[in-house]
Amino acid sequence: MIRKNFVYVEDISQYDGKEVSIAGWVYNKRSSGKIWFLLLRDGTGIIQCVVSKKDVPEEVFELEKTLTQESSVIVKGLVHADHRAPGGYELWVRHIEPVHIAQEYPITPKEHGVDFLMDHRHLWLRSTKQHAILRVRHAVVRAIRDFFDNNGFTLIDSPIFTPSACEGTTTLFETDYFGGKAYLTQSGQLYVEAAAMAFGKVYCFGPTFRAEKSKTRRHLTEFWMVEPEVAYADLDDNMDLAEEFLEYVVQRVIREKEKELQVLERDLTMLEKVKRPFPRITYDEAVEILKKNQVAFEYGDDFGGTDETVISSAFDKPVMVHRYPAEVKAFYMKRDPQDPSKALCVDVLAPEGYGEVIGGGQREDDYDTLLQRIREHGLPEDAFQWYLDLRRYGSVPHSGFGLGIERTVAWICGLKHIRETIPFPRTIYRLYP
Amino acid sequence: MIRKNFVYVEDISQYDGKEVSIAGWVYNKRSSGKIWFLLLRDGTGIIQCVVSKKDVPEEVFELEKTLTQESSVIVKGLVHADHRAPGGYELWVRHIEPVHIAQEYPITPKEHGVDFLMDHRHLWLRSTKQHAILRVRHAVVRAIRDFFDNNGFTLIDSPIFTPSACEGTTTLFETDYFGGKAYLTQSGQLYVEAAAMAFGKVYCFGPTFRAEKSKTRRHLTEFWMVEPEVAYADLDDNMDLAEEFLEYVVQRVIREKEKELQVLERDLTMLEKVKRPFPRITYDEAVEILKKNQVAFEYGDDFGGTDETVISSAFDKPVMVHRYPAEVKAFYMKRDPQDPSKALCVDVLAPEGYGEVIGGGQREDDYDTLLQRIREHGLPEDAFQWYLDLRRYGSVPHSGFGLGIERTVAWICGLKHIRETIPFPRTIYRLYP
Repeated sequence: MIRKNFVYVEDISQYDGKEVSIAGWVYNKRSSGKIWFLLLRDGTGIIQCVVSKKDVPEEVFELEKTLTQESSVIVKGLVHADHRAPGGYELWVRHIEPVHIAQEYPITPKEHGVDFLMDHRHLWLRSTKQHAILRVRHAVVRAIRDFFDNNGFTLIDSPIFTPSACEGTTTLFETDYFGGKAYLTQSGQLYVEAAAMAFGKVYCFGPTFRAEKSKTRRHLTEFWMVEPEVAYADLDDNMDLAEEFLEYVVQRVIREKEKELQVLERDLTMLEKVKRPFPRITYDEAVEILKKNQVAFEYGDDFGGTDETVISSAFDKPVMVHRYPAEVKAFYMKRDPQDPSKALCVDVLAPEGYGEVIGGGQREDDYDTLLQRIREHGLPEDAFQWYLDLRRYGSVPHSGFGLGIERTVAWICGLKHIRETIPFPRTIYRLYP
Repeated sequence: MIRKNFVYVEDISQYDGKEVSIAGWVYNKRSSGKIWFLLLRDGTGIIQCVVSKKDVPEEVFELEKTLTQESSVIVKGLVHADHRAPGGYELWVRHIEPVHIAQEYPITPKEHGVDFLMDHRHLWLRSTKQHAILRVRHAVVRAIRDFFDNNGFTLIDSPIFTPSACEGTTTLFETDYFGGKAYLTQSGQLYVEAAAMAFGKVYCFGPTFRAEKSKTRRHLTEFWMVEPEVAYADLDDNMDLAEEFLEYVVQRVIREKEKELQVLERDLTMLEKVKRPFPRITYDEAVEILKKNQVAFEYGDDFGGTDETVISSAFDKPVMVHRYPAEVKAFYMKRDPQDPSKALCVDVLAPEGYGEVIGGGQREDDYDTLLQRIREHGLPEDAFQWYLDLRRYGSVPHSGFGLGIERTVAWICGLKHIRETIPFPRTIYRLYP
């Protein structure tokens, strides 16, 4: 389709026995006397190119000496099926055209520190491991969108510039907006609530921002989140949706990205178990698990990362913890009519210590109650008039949740830190490249 | 799947002859003596509900008096196929449960000003026209992603926070970043260039930001853009990709969203013609068209909106205008070796006066030349070291483009102003709701 003159390594099987040109970069090379081997990567795969003294002009054979790692080259040759070759094919070289001889490449097979690699993120992306992670990320994004698209949800891109906070004011990024102030969105939820009243079931999917001052392995200042919202759905419906959704995404990705997960040496045993039904426990039951495990924990607090690890370790599947104390949850959460000290919320904790990947719940749908909460939280009433309107004109029970993409990718890939799950991570100390 | 107790109007044909409950909102009602009709919308469709005095308890029949527009109700009844009914089915009502009686709804069938409607955007989304537009938007997004996903492109989410400008410094939004400064991205292009060297062919798709001080019908401060980038692709390859891509998106959306485009009374004649090949003309040839049409235009300037309209009116398909004067284009554009005063760039102008929907080109791949451009443009060299690295380590010819989602949706929907093509538009004067 594109690039009239070159074929991609991923399509090489269509060209067995034919002469083709492949445009790529020198991944590695090794010599064997009258033959040398060039491992050529073109972004879609790696192919072994066999350069034989008898088949090429002398100046091409001599290129072995000048082609540095990551130099760009166009290689012409005959595609030859060979079951011993990685990928099943090799290229019998007829010609090599150097495009650009790379300077000494900073990333070598030796160990580099993470800071060094992150400073060279724009080059680090070329490595096999980063390739695998970002392809898994792509598959996760695609699975998520397909799930909602195929289930009749309407995509609603929520705004990035917002006039007010949604998840608390301590982690807001602020920008001058033509002389006024705007805040970068922390969540599209309030907006998808409006859209759910219009379309029945909707989702937003985009970047969100939190000025996280803590440097942890699970926080970025900029991360992607998908947030479905459904009208006339209660907390139970919401948990049904969350488990169906998570099963779909995990099972599809481990099936589609088997090769990449092998590169990452991911043990799939636990991921294969991510199938409905997931255990559902209350906050109170989760606290009991902490107690049984002698974890020091004050009843009424939110769970920390290590608490979540202990709780999720009690199960071999994601566990849904519902009905947290209302005090630790956002102002828009509906209270449980059976126990108004609790919120009708749910967090889904991933196994293997990955912690919360989903947070959500049923939203307060009563006008007076919501207004009271806005006041209690000291939020600007003016900025929330439109949100209150949803409770003035045909208010209905409604629910939704948010899933963090980077945490989900880290979990599926088996990575301890989420910084490698996004192409260009942003943290308190990192804005470059 | 979700919402155990209710069926959606869009699925109603599966329930012919069965009793179901539908949860929705009062769209309209009309009386006919011993029968009244409730038009019920649930976000997926509208169904006529027939309330007959003989079939329902008196208090249900009397609800006609109290159910205001947009009140939320759960309606139980028998699904009955009737070819006269809009949608082919009606509901013979057995019971109605009011959920919430709406206050007097601010949006009525009478004409409202755009500012009023935009102030009530969170409610305006419920109207048939806005529904149709945002469903077209969703279809556009899906078609775009499918095109790239199915053609082997890897999704690379480019960062929103950037340390430097990409498209000029006059339209930058700035934010405090832990004591330093960060800028909101104007384009993901520089980052997808890095990724193209790693993955061969990539795309990013996300919100971008420009502090546009002009209030025009074609500008938003926050808009979504998709940006493919391909290694080893030249300007011709880029034009091939652009036309194949645009044909795919337009043809698929007008096929999938026929109903919505009917609601919008869109004449599809011109859209049906969006098929390859598109005419390709140089900037110089475009200037000739302006001259022939007696447009006052200074050779060397960039085209304005009206210029684009005149140029595109000469063709019945999108027209690709290439090789603009390098002076009016960004620093990273490669110059034409045949005429270094020109850039190897292309803009795609949509017909019917919609103007530029795609802008792109081949990127400068020579280290020294690019460094010189960065200096000429007074850009901070430090911030661009990583970008220069791409020309240090295996530089290759590469090309890409950006397509603006909102302009494309406006064109397909036949809207003169792009503000209705995004759920919550942001302009110099609008940050609410």
